[in-house]
Amino acid sequence: MASPGTADSPDATLDADALVSLAEIRAAAERIRGVALHTPLLPWDDTTWLKPESLQPIGAFKIRGAYNKVASLTDAERARGVITYSSGNHAQAVARAARLLGAPAVIVMPVDAPAVKVAGVRRDGAEIVVSPSSSSEERQRIAEELVIERGYVMIPPYDDPLVIAGQGTVGLEIAEDLPAVSSVLVPVSGGGLAAGVATAVKLLRPGARVIGVEPELAADARESLARGEPVRWSAEATARTMADGLRTQSLGRLPFAHLRRYLDGIVTVTEEEIAEAMRQLATRARLVAEPSGAAAMAAHLSGRVPQALGDDARVVLVSGGNVDPARFAEILAG
Amino acid sequence: MASPGTADSPDATLDADALVSLAEIRAAAERIRGVALHTPLLPWDDTTWLKPESLQPIGAFKIRGAYNKVASLTDAERARGVITYSSGNHAQAVARAARLLGAPAVIVMPVDAPAVKVAGVRRDGAEIVVSPSSSSEERQRIAEELVIERGYVMIPPYDDPLVIAGQGTVGLEIAEDLPAVSSVLVPVSGGGLAAGVATAVKLLRPGARVIGVEPELAADARESLARGEPVRWSAEATARTMADGLRTQSLGRLPFAHLRRYLDGIVTVTEEEIAEAMRQLATRARLVAEPSGAAAMAAHLSGRVPQALGDDARVVLVSGGNVDPARFAEILAG
Repeated sequence: MASPGTADSPDATLDADALVSLAEIRAAAERIRGVALHTPLLPWDDTTWLKPESLQPIGAFKIRGAYNKVASLTDAERARGVITYSSGNHAQAVARAARLLGAPAVIVMPVDAPAVKVAGVRRDGAEIVVSPSSSSEERQRIAEELVIERGYVMIPPYDDPLVIAGQGTVGLEIAEDLPAVSSVLVPVSGGGLAAGVATAVKLLRPGARVIGVEPELAADARESLARGEPVRWSAEATARTMADGLRTQSLGRLPFAHLRRYLDGIVTVTEEEIAEAMRQLATRARLVAEPSGAAAMAAHLSGRVPQALGDDARVVLVSGGNVDPARFAEILAG
Repeated sequence: MASPGTADSPDATLDADALVSLAEIRAAAERIRGVALHTPLLPWDDTTWLKPESLQPIGAFKIRGAYNKVASLTDAERARGVITYSSGNHAQAVARAARLLGAPAVIVMPVDAPAVKVAGVRRDGAEIVVSPSSSSEERQRIAEELVIERGYVMIPPYDDPLVIAGQGTVGLEIAEDLPAVSSVLVPVSGGGLAAGVATAVKLLRPGARVIGVEPELAADARESLARGEPVRWSAEATARTMADGLRTQSLGRLPFAHLRRYLDGIVTVTEEEIAEAMRQLATRARLVAEPSGAAAMAAHLSGRVPQALGDDARVVLVSGGNVDPARFAEILAG
């Protein structure tokens, strides 16, 4: 049962006016032009295309939402500096957006963040604060304290309309580049990407299905949508998946409302299916995908989302490619 | 010294009228539209972009030239069937082009072709004839015999104006997408890609420098350009490089004439520089590059082509990404 209006649980009956609009997604597309890449659709087979967000400057779709948010701040806000909490890709995105827009940046990262993601943040000159645990709630708490202590402006990883609108530009590009799109497979963590993509695709191509994908070991979103209210998983539980980008413990309030409204379904994948998808993407699409980035492809390849008659223009999101090379080599070697 | 007109050596004084024109490259661009990808330019740093031809449907630029050639045949020629000889990427390109255009295809591949490339050819339904040696001359001889015996039409890997024009579309896209281009680094094997790219770039952006890159262990093109006549290396010599796509023993006659006219210089790279470029491309650009595909990046990263003042819009070609996963894992693990 949904628990609208209670203090501790997101409001599942969020007013429709609060949802991100197509106009906001189009405005985001204008704002990020020349910063984020308009990624190509790569043919996988006769009925399936890949949308390789792994090719973005910081190696993941996150640059879209982070840049849209930081660019929308006032000069005074940017001068105070921005802060966020992230296991890695949103961290890199905020660091890059802040550098491009001349804002100081502080990033709270978990102690077990992949080295390749930490290095990316460092290269863009952001200050890193290490959270001692892998809990997404713990790093959020530390960041929120720093907002109060030092006056930074928070750039939330997913629970923000400007961030969702930025991620929604992925869906806008799909709808424009492949007007006949019949289905879209998108990974779900905090829900910002899935919310933005589902919004853009369903509003522009109502006939297309949008399906979310989660690791079986971090399936809080599936449970939340099934129950009709956001469910929280423990950090210990979600830490079991190798998909470090999909370990968020619960959907954001605003993403949840979008997914309730626009998502057609959600499926889960196993760790071995993710590993196999990484191998297939490397060998047959020549893409380096991180585990989280390969989750949607895992759902496609394992038949978790059967391609019914008429579903002849499917797009599978490859959301990111930041994986430590030694780990990647290990997975490739099988 | 050049030896024009002798039977065994290419004619270095080839008439300018015989060179591929910009109009032929533009015609190729029209012909391959919707088959080859217009690859994006991926920012590497503030002054350098990657042109990832590894993202093409068959994993290499070769689809451009092969499709342009097969599409230009008469219906009667296509009905007879096409044949080629290749270590792998041109093989896959001809197999794919033939399938798309409804022509039977036979491919002569060396016994040591990477399994991933053989599998690609098989998937497109071409017949494979295995050449017992790794010699590029030997596989050419076998293919030429089959032309006589069975009436197939030869699709040469590089020594053909339609193939060069197809590869030249890479240069056309660079000139159009980055009008300020200041330099282009391109790998050289038989010379088709380098010839096409140099032609398009120098005719459209005369101020840009086009530099060829070869493995030190297969540097026949550098020697050929230095001497002013094509020089042949032995199969044993060129087999030493891990860049299997760059083992061709000598430049084609027509590519050589283009390179003499348009190329600004040529440099060589070591095997370790190629391996390091593969690691950097995987980690920082999330691209799977095969050794041949990483050669130009190796030249860039190792400073073999110093980025002089004003060379602030460099494009580095990543020409292909077909590498056996176990081999790739081994190189990544360093």
